[in-house]
Amino acid sequence: MNPMTSTTTTGQERKAPGRPRNAQADQAILDAVLTLLADGQSAAALSIESVAAKAGVGKATIYRRWANKEALLIDAVRSMKGPLPEVGGVSAREDLIALVTANRSSRAREFGIVTACILPELQRDPELNRMHHAVMEPRRERMREILRRGVANGEFRADLDVHLAALMLSGPSMMLGMFGDATGVSEEDFPARLVDALVRGLAA
Amino acid sequence: MNPMTSTTTTGQERKAPGRPRNAQADQAILDAVLTLLADGQSAAALSIESVAAKAGVGKATIYRRWANKEALLIDAVRSMKGPLPEVGGVSAREDLIALVTANRSSRAREFGIVTACILPELQRDPELNRMHHAVMEPRRERMREILRRGVANGEFRADLDVHLAALMLSGPSMMLGMFGDATGVSEEDFPARLVDALVRGLAA
Repeated sequence: MNPMTSTTTTGQERKAPGRPRNAQADQAILDAVLTLLADGQSAAALSIESVAAKAGVGKATIYRRWANKEALLIDAVRSMKGPLPEVGGVSAREDLIALVTANRSSRAREFGIVTACILPELQRDPELNRMHHAVMEPRRERMREILRRGVANGEFRADLDVHLAALMLSGPSMMLGMFGDATGVSEEDFPARLVDALVRGLAA
Repeated sequence: MNPMTSTTTTGQERKAPGRPRNAQADQAILDAVLTLLADGQSAAALSIESVAAKAGVGKATIYRRWANKEALLIDAVRSMKGPLPEVGGVSAREDLIALVTANRSSRAREFGIVTACILPELQRDPELNRMHHAVMEPRRERMREILRRGVANGEFRADLDVHLAALMLSGPSMMLGMFGDATGVSEEDFPARLVDALVRGLAA
């Protein structure tokens, strides 16, 4: 996403910059937010001062780009999630593997922690919760679309619970990201192994 | 678990009490730790003072029972997890449902947050990480035992990856606990629906 042209989740243009936007500085600021949260800083305790210090910029640089801490938090979550992946493979199975792969990241562990640690703040702040939902829901819906397509083309069973199946793809992925080796599960080729295990089922 | 007789994860008796142990006070202290963490307090920032204030006890009461903050954190995680459930149903399917049910809780959302938010602290402190592993691993192994039994009795496929299958049971459960309604998945009868969806698979 190009920060020059991005809009907020309410569809309004972001706060107009006082000088030309610097995508590199924007990313450094968003990374600083994610690093502080992943390091155990609570969202409530996170201060613009600490973000500025971590990113090596002045507070004014942050306030030129984001109106408040809530807008900054949501953009950090969005940047962590990356762009909504386009899929269109030969089969729903292939699309699910592509989507699980896109949702994974070398920073999966940090991202699992960040996701969990902002939850108390989301609960306290309905507007923040709404903004977070606006970031997450299109990603959940993309997963469900592929599952529905698999039902329609006969790959998946007609009585599939698509919400449950989507949770069965994202939950294990998040947990592996958070706990890594302790789960006993290898990262190698994980998306394909997960999708195939789910498609085939445990039954003999 | 009776706090009078419990042992630490190293097998040593806990710090000898200066006066008769009070199970109710112990639980209030452990609940205070979990509530503070679930409310967005980082494990690093958690202080014995804040726990004492939340639990309505003096700091000395806490130090009589736990040698340090690390021991208190691990006991809080253990109390959150509850006793390791005994299972022995007619089928592996039934045992999996019983285990997923036992691992769930009305405080699942809080517990998911707590679990995630102590991860940065576990990474910083190898001894704490070891203690946490000692609490978690028997629970993971119980799940794998049931899965292996299902393979042995012919319920589950012979080539089952038991570590992956265990992650596919615990991951969705944790994620539903953390995000609740936003996942689109109902809590009602969730353990049975999860196990059956996993056993049957998505394939038509």
